[in-house]
Amino acid sequence: MNPNHFALILLEFVLVIGLSLFGRAVAKALEQPVVFGELLVGLVCSTLVRFGGGSFVGVAHDLSLFAELGIVLLMFHIGLETNVKDLIANGPQAMKVAAVGVIAPLGLGLLTSYFLISNGGFTTHLFVATALCATSVGLTARLFADMRRLGSPEAQLVLTAAVFDDVLGLILLTLSAGLAAQGEVALIPVLKIVGLAVVFFGVLGWFGETLVGAVMQNVEFLEPPGRRLLIPLALCFFLSWLANQIGLATIVGAFMAGLILKDEHFQTDGPSVRSEIESLATLFAPVFFVVLGLQVDLFSLAKGNVLMLTICLTIAAVLGKMACSLVVGDKIDGVIVGVGMIPRGEVGLIFASLGRSLEILDDDVFSAIVLTIVITTLAAPAALRWALARETMPEPPPPRD
Amino acid sequence: MNPNHFALILLEFVLVIGLSLFGRAVAKALEQPVVFGELLVGLVCSTLVRFGGGSFVGVAHDLSLFAELGIVLLMFHIGLETNVKDLIANGPQAMKVAAVGVIAPLGLGLLTSYFLISNGGFTTHLFVATALCATSVGLTARLFADMRRLGSPEAQLVLTAAVFDDVLGLILLTLSAGLAAQGEVALIPVLKIVGLAVVFFGVLGWFGETLVGAVMQNVEFLEPPGRRLLIPLALCFFLSWLANQIGLATIVGAFMAGLILKDEHFQTDGPSVRSEIESLATLFAPVFFVVLGLQVDLFSLAKGNVLMLTICLTIAAVLGKMACSLVVGDKIDGVIVGVGMIPRGEVGLIFASLGRSLEILDDDVFSAIVLTIVITTLAAPAALRWALARETMPEPPPPRD
Repeated sequence: MNPNHFALILLEFVLVIGLSLFGRAVAKALEQPVVFGELLVGLVCSTLVRFGGGSFVGVAHDLSLFAELGIVLLMFHIGLETNVKDLIANGPQAMKVAAVGVIAPLGLGLLTSYFLISNGGFTTHLFVATALCATSVGLTARLFADMRRLGSPEAQLVLTAAVFDDVLGLILLTLSAGLAAQGEVALIPVLKIVGLAVVFFGVLGWFGETLVGAVMQNVEFLEPPGRRLLIPLALCFFLSWLANQIGLATIVGAFMAGLILKDEHFQTDGPSVRSEIESLATLFAPVFFVVLGLQVDLFSLAKGNVLMLTICLTIAAVLGKMACSLVVGDKIDGVIVGVGMIPRGEVGLIFASLGRSLEILDDDVFSAIVLTIVITTLAAPAALRWALARETMPEPPPPRD
Repeated sequence: MNPNHFALILLEFVLVIGLSLFGRAVAKALEQPVVFGELLVGLVCSTLVRFGGGSFVGVAHDLSLFAELGIVLLMFHIGLETNVKDLIANGPQAMKVAAVGVIAPLGLGLLTSYFLISNGGFTTHLFVATALCATSVGLTARLFADMRRLGSPEAQLVLTAAVFDDVLGLILLTLSAGLAAQGEVALIPVLKIVGLAVVFFGVLGWFGETLVGAVMQNVEFLEPPGRRLLIPLALCFFLSWLANQIGLATIVGAFMAGLILKDEHFQTDGPSVRSEIESLATLFAPVFFVVLGLQVDLFSLAKGNVLMLTICLTIAAVLGKMACSLVVGDKIDGVIVGVGMIPRGEVGLIFASLGRSLEILDDDVFSAIVLTIVITTLAAPAALRWALARETMPEPPPPRD
């Protein structure tokens, strides 16, 4: 690597760290979660620089590796914090929520796209709708964590459902991309991805923990830093790669790695695996969120059609996920679940950029999808705070006088 | 970033982590420092793969950002572990050692190159000799640390001298590159780099600690992870960039950042700054050393001229640094200092690759320089162990009968 380019990347990293710290201060002042501040500061900064004719395309490109690593580390950390037993217990309920949370935005997205994108074919409509399906597990988890509610039944249900809707979203993506390439719906690839996903989750779910325990007993010759940091990360990166190989998102593999590792596997002095991974995620995860904010082009909203499409897609995205609140059962607060499913993120953005590279989505439609994702993301913290505050107020007070 | 490419990078990272863990086990079995095992395993792996017709060029390219980050983090950690007062106290002595440690290998390198590289001009000879000048601070520091001798006066002298000879080496590089570009020695750039280096070290040395203390008192609104991890890293990355901007190596800036930060600046609960940075370095520094090993082409030694040049350059490199042992004064063990100066690393490799890209060095000469650097690196652990063991045995036993 050219030393001057590497030095520039370090300076860009400093810029992002600075924006992240500023975002934290803003979030604290507004009593919002950290990630809200980071996205907002990135967005404001992007808008100011675009106003001056510049952009952060170079920064986003240079830091993309760190941003991707950040999301993987964050998902790994979230997996470590998640209890597998709860996940399995949540399974049937979560699948129901996920199914509604995919079908409703898909239907509403198709309708919106059909009426507003006059020059698009069925493939375009399908891509637009698919991009609305996947809840951002990373963002939702960080929101619940920031609000210290990660352990609540609602949070566990949302996170499990978000994992399932990632899988459903990726199946839809396979279907849409196949349709775009061949002009017809290809059944075999869809069945293949479903089958592989079932095998992946099944094998890891049943044998993963036993396997990790066995491995750890045989590497006791290694010194603590190797045992505590390198082996867990090697497992995380390997499962991330494997998930990508079988057609899932890398972050799904990182999450699974976190699920099957337990702190009990690493009985060493010094900090726990969780706190080690948390440190790594503290450094790299903000890169993803700040850079996401830096890439938004607010000025494209000046075009009437982009503004209209963004508004309608946002309504479709919100209503589609709020529909989940209807199927959560009695003991769980449906509004929290519905609101918790609203934020879109990485997976939707991946779909949108893939659609653009396949020339299925033009620049305006692409901008509208990205802005919809950003709006759901920016609105989520306030909405979730409202939903949670609502829950703790048992009854509205009687009207005065 | 393309998701498939990112997944591949994760898999390559797993490979490097696996090799690093294997290298640790080998090092432990052979009672050698960790870095020795990592380089050796990388080298053996490279040779096996080249034997099968492959190479690790793709892996080295994909992981270059992590490898560079690893070296910056390692230098930062070393700076954090170094006491500034000792460094200043060592200053005059270290400058004398550094001057000898640059002039002697330069002279011997020029002679070797003059007699063995028949088709080279003065610029080529100067580049070859310059590549032998800079001691690898990172490797030497890790060796002393692995042997738990980082606090000894010899280690402190070697580390200080290694910082000074990096600066001297970079001055020589500026001179050589200027000569190659203009056909004459350019005095102004040389004076400029010397002046900027003096200002950089001077300003940071005198005001750095006070400045950091003042900054830290004004960011107490930040939460602990931000204070403890993000601010130190932002400072480290910023000074690394600044060092590059004024013509020094990025790692010199990272080292300076470590020098001016003190754990007392970060009175927070949880792990110390040092241990946080150590965790980061534990993850990324092995990437540099394993990838360095993976890039060596042992088969080029089959060519007679490359073998001869490698042997003679290695002798020049070793004798040149051993000359330092003559100027260390009475209270310090000269042999440990001389041996400690032997390993070459990052800076020499940067010079060699720059020389190749400027077409001053052909592939054979380039290979010979890289192999010389690797040999000094591989020989250093055993040599330093010998030198240290020698020191603890006060007198040889009387000959038996």
